Amino acid sequence: MGLKDEIFEQPAVLQNWLDTQLVQTQMIAQAIRQRHIDYVFLAARGTSDHAGVYAQYLWGSLNGLPVAFAAPSLFTRYSGWPRLERALVVGISQSGQSPDIVSVIDEGRRQGALTLAITNAVDSPLADAAEFALDVSAGPEKAVAATKSYTAQLLALAALGAAISDEEDKLAALWRVPHAVNEALKLDQAIAQVAAEYKAMDRCVVLGRGFNYATAHEWALKLKELAYVFADPYSAADFQHGPIAIVEPGFNMLAVAPHGAVLADIKSLLHRLREELQANLLVLSDDDEALALGNASFHLPPDVPEWLTPLVAIVPAQLFCYHLTQAKGYDTEAPRSIRKVTLTK
Amino acid sequence: MGLKDEIFEQPAVLQNWLDTQLVQTQMIAQAIRQRHIDYVFLAARGTSDHAGVYAQYLWGSLNGLPVAFAAPSLFTRYSGWPRLERALVVGISQSGQSPDIVSVIDEGRRQGALTLAITNAVDSPLADAAEFALDVSAGPEKAVAATKSYTAQLLALAALGAAISDEEDKLAALWRVPHAVNEALKLDQAIAQVAAEYKAMDRCVVLGRGFNYATAHEWALKLKELAYVFADPYSAADFQHGPIAIVEPGFNMLAVAPHGAVLADIKSLLHRLREELQANLLVLSDDDEALALGNASFHLPPDVPEWLTPLVAIVPAQLFCYHLTQAKGYDTEAPRSIRKVTLTK
Repeated sequence: MGLKDEIFEQPAVLQNWLDTQLVQTQMIAQAIRQRHIDYVFLAARGTSDHAGVYAQYLWGSLNGLPVAFAAPSLFTRYSGWPRLERALVVGISQSGQSPDIVSVIDEGRRQGALTLAITNAVDSPLADAAEFALDVSAGPEKAVAATKSYTAQLLALAALGAAISDEEDKLAALWRVPHAVNEALKLDQAIAQVAAEYKAMDRCVVLGRGFNYATAHEWALKLKELAYVFADPYSAADFQHGPIAIVEPGFNMLAVAPHGAVLADIKSLLHRLREELQANLLVLSDDDEALALGNASFHLPPDVPEWLTPLVAIVPAQLFCYHLTQAKGYDTEAPRSIRKVTLTK
Repeated sequence: MGLKDEIFEQPAVLQNWLDTQLVQTQMIAQAIRQRHIDYVFLAARGTSDHAGVYAQYLWGSLNGLPVAFAAPSLFTRYSGWPRLERALVVGISQSGQSPDIVSVIDEGRRQGALTLAITNAVDSPLADAAEFALDVSAGPEKAVAATKSYTAQLLALAALGAAISDEEDKLAALWRVPHAVNEALKLDQAIAQVAAEYKAMDRCVVLGRGFNYATAHEWALKLKELAYVFADPYSAADFQHGPIAIVEPGFNMLAVAPHGAVLADIKSLLHRLREELQANLLVLSDDDEALALGNASFHLPPDVPEWLTPLVAIVPAQLFCYHLTQAKGYDTEAPRSIRKVTLTK
């Protein structure tokens, strides 16, 4: 089992999650609906933090719940403890081992808040600490770079949001995700060819906005940790507030641009990047105009509701990173300098 | 008046702010103390967003107030409106013009939340929209890159935190900031020499943690928009969860490392970066061991309380960006592709 196997396992992992975890998720949603929750207080690091960014947009738009990120050092290094009684306190961690994430759940519980662990390890300090635990159920993840545990985290978060909102059509839409992910995997050969052309890329910016701001972050992290590309994620809005100054002709810009409420904004930025600044664009989209703006582009499967596009759009991004790492001659299974479990405090 | 004048104006701007704005700040703090505020809901972009990152640590540790960032596209592009009745809704913008920031304040007011604008333009849509307005009072800022408006925003945020906590020693400490900023400006010539040695730098990572996570973000943005250096800000903790893989021998790492609760963590990472990974380190610190770890280092003024160090530590960072931009032969006053006021929606 290597990284590529884990990427290709995702349709089965997601289908299995739906088959086995929805009942528990609806039970947790029921407990959340019965409390006066004002906001979510969320702790996570690395890839799990990007799942948290997805939760910020998802729960904000589906459930009217603002998400405050925990800034773990506030808990572990400073004396101040935010008031958490009316918060839903959430910790996300693949391994469930990180002491700083566990400490946030511990404090939430001490203050009487509703606490929830989302982890791929049900026998872990994080799952033990929380009142409720959502099992990501992705199976053992051997590769240092997280892939299937990330999409399974997103599915668990999406399902919880749909269950809290209690809308039948949203819950039904979840069941179409494994098929769409399978369709995205069929891009594999086309992606391998494009990735080979990007072999010399040593830096880039990854754009996303709204739900896919999370995808931009996760794509950039994968580019850093696997292919050692200096990749910087930006919201299409924030990028215009200063960072756009770094763009020179030929500068590599990667864009996550599926259909939806923010597509027009991203397309207008892509037009400027292409025509005025002569950037080199790689576009992930299901929109013909956005695809045509790319010097290279990957056609995302159509008919995925916007709020679920991050579960599908990350798949070609993972494949691109895998093939780029191979093209550069680096090790896809054991990136230098990092470990699977990092015990920051 | 150019960028360098605005950098050197900061002690006077901060002194003037204390002389003229503290009474209004204490009145606003009083109104906040009288309400049942569970959390802060904060909207900002660009440099103002980094002031928001400072507020997250400051108000979290001084006032027990978690900060949720507004993700403006949730308001302007999606239909979901978070519940805000028990939030303090804050908008930060130098110009007070950005429609997406104004829309967050508008919605907070519609829901009956306490609303606060922090802006350098008291006659602006943002100040008009909010129930309370804190005047940053930095005077006209001509350079596209924000400097004095940023430190004045930090001072306004720090003063509000101190006034809410109502601790005399915290309020007293504010008055020592202008002198410390003036001391930091005396590093100018030493910084000019070091910046010339960094003339060829085209990429780097900027590390900070805790209160100075904001400083890392602001330093990296200035490097991008002025010197076109591809600079990526990281918390020292998050950096170890993957991104550290990009570090090769000679890779440029800039670190903001004043004394305080997170210094030991940053020093242990700096040891690893220097000894194991042979990175090239530039260190801002008032701690002898941290300074000695740098291939180059700038000695911050001592005796600044940790929670106020971001107001002082950003000053040598601004000077470094100014001199680096000059060394590279770029225009410090009008960076390419960006405007002073960006009207994102």
